[in-house]
Amino acid sequence: MPGSRALNVAVVGATGVVGQELFKVLEQRDFPIGRLKALASERSAGLEVRCGNHLVPVEPLGEDSFRGVDLALFSAGADISLMYSPVAVEAGALVIDNSSAWRLRENVPLVVPEVNAEDVRQSEGIVANPNCCAIPLTVVLEPLRRGAGLARVHVSTYQSASGAGRALVQELEDQTRAIAEGRRPEATVYPHQLAYNVVPGGWSVEPEGYNEEEMKLAHETRKILHEPHLRIAATCVRVPVPTCHAESVFVDTERMLTAEEARTLLGAAPGVIVEDDPAAKLYPTPAHVAGKDEVYVGRVRNDLSGSRGLALWLVSDNLRKGAALNAIQVAECGREMGII
Amino acid sequence: MPGSRALNVAVVGATGVVGQELFKVLEQRDFPIGRLKALASERSAGLEVRCGNHLVPVEPLGEDSFRGVDLALFSAGADISLMYSPVAVEAGALVIDNSSAWRLRENVPLVVPEVNAEDVRQSEGIVANPNCCAIPLTVVLEPLRRGAGLARVHVSTYQSASGAGRALVQELEDQTRAIAEGRRPEATVYPHQLAYNVVPGGWSVEPEGYNEEEMKLAHETRKILHEPHLRIAATCVRVPVPTCHAESVFVDTERMLTAEEARTLLGAAPGVIVEDDPAAKLYPTPAHVAGKDEVYVGRVRNDLSGSRGLALWLVSDNLRKGAALNAIQVAECGREMGII
Repeated sequence: MPGSRALNVAVVGATGVVGQELFKVLEQRDFPIGRLKALASERSAGLEVRCGNHLVPVEPLGEDSFRGVDLALFSAGADISLMYSPVAVEAGALVIDNSSAWRLRENVPLVVPEVNAEDVRQSEGIVANPNCCAIPLTVVLEPLRRGAGLARVHVSTYQSASGAGRALVQELEDQTRAIAEGRRPEATVYPHQLAYNVVPGGWSVEPEGYNEEEMKLAHETRKILHEPHLRIAATCVRVPVPTCHAESVFVDTERMLTAEEARTLLGAAPGVIVEDDPAAKLYPTPAHVAGKDEVYVGRVRNDLSGSRGLALWLVSDNLRKGAALNAIQVAECGREMGII
Repeated sequence: MPGSRALNVAVVGATGVVGQELFKVLEQRDFPIGRLKALASERSAGLEVRCGNHLVPVEPLGEDSFRGVDLALFSAGADISLMYSPVAVEAGALVIDNSSAWRLRENVPLVVPEVNAEDVRQSEGIVANPNCCAIPLTVVLEPLRRGAGLARVHVSTYQSASGAGRALVQELEDQTRAIAEGRRPEATVYPHQLAYNVVPGGWSVEPEGYNEEEMKLAHETRKILHEPHLRIAATCVRVPVPTCHAESVFVDTERMLTAEEARTLLGAAPGVIVEDDPAAKLYPTPAHVAGKDEVYVGRVRNDLSGSRGLALWLVSDNLRKGAALNAIQVAECGREMGII
């Protein structure tokens, strides 16, 4: 009977910010776990990580790590994933990988359950978990796509420090303390000071001046939405916020949608909460959305620059829906479908 | 002989953040001042403000304040300006007003010297100084407009605390200190916590869900560029930065421009510095641009979502080019034209 037995789960990258969030989400969603393995690099060996009331010893990742594992949740970067995901698949596990390693491979589904859950069925052992900005963007674009078709999308992001990992969160905290104490903030992890600043870079540079994050956002959004020719461009910006990514989005739709119709579509969409009453000072902000599961949308307006356009603002917890939660939701889909 | 005599100058709103910057810029640009008056509300009477090596006593603003004044620089909000600008004009002064009171009046020029300096000649006594986001946007759009025509503009802003005045800068500092000390940040000046957050609101709400700032940006950009039908829409967002506004801009041009051609046009434009080499981690950020006079532009790319589009990123000191500096530059135009 699919979905009834407890699963042996391995978390690869157990000590990272997303790894930690994976344990938290597994516990919060009461995921049926048999054995739980925490895998990380040799450096973390000897540490323990917490999952609910359990302390799990961190084991070094190796060729034998996946024996008996049903579900392997990878969040350890593209290189580790390229090396060890095939090992985990070979050992019989379903891999859900949070890195960018497999996302654009043709035979690897890239899944946001609210959008394209059925794609999980095409998995040959690996399901890719999308980029932390692409996930909430597609959750919000999908109901608009179904309701009115998508013609063109412009995105400007406001991305938090945790998207770059624990070290940048720590650097933001250190810089914040320096500023509060009248000292000069030091930037070593990121190319520029992040506290009291906004930085339109910090990602690898790709051709034509775009950076890796902006290209991920475009390519992955197209793949998840099954819209390979979607016209989309993004400018990605890091802001001095610990958690939650925000996005200012302009969408041209194929058919006219009023802001009210868009709000109705969004309000009925899975995983979306519409918070849109500017007169009552109600719109989503990272400080409020941190820790929440849904993608919050506000500032929905008809785009004054185009006849069939919408402007909107979305905020999503990049560690939860943008990473760990989405991965666990994909795993839940896999269970319901009898794949694991 | 125009432009040779010293002028009697009054600064209205002398104790505000922009008022203070006006004194600084007057001094830095060696503006030929005869008598200098610092005007403010009764509350500030008795204070002194500094202009270079001089301390100027703050006088309460009144009906007689403008006798003998040649140039009145207003930065005291729309209500004060509506009440006292006509008084100053009546007394023979040229008013340059930093509030939104007169900006969209038909007989009041709205001037960014790099863009439409000649409009100063049409003044009937008042010249309006544009919104702090509209100024840098038009400085950057004008060379693109001249080079290729503008079809459509999408703007998402990253606006600093000082745009809302001294109280929000203080609140950001207080919240930053609270976070550094592990206390809960309090929000009283702004509707939401600003430190460690980004807030897509805080401006008055207008019909159709837009706020006052977003509408100013659209209307004023059209007026300054003499493009009354320009298709433009904005989403305005406050970020936890003390000074400098940044804008992520997508521009569709009438004729195709490559990113390289756009960089060349921008590099040759007055008041613009192109800082665009992401591989060398070079792009403008508020922390770097604060205190600078020019509008900094980077991340210039061809818009992957459209055949004749550009994506770019600009940063400008909102207290200088976005307010005080632009006002003084307008005054300098007025002197050169023999208007004052």
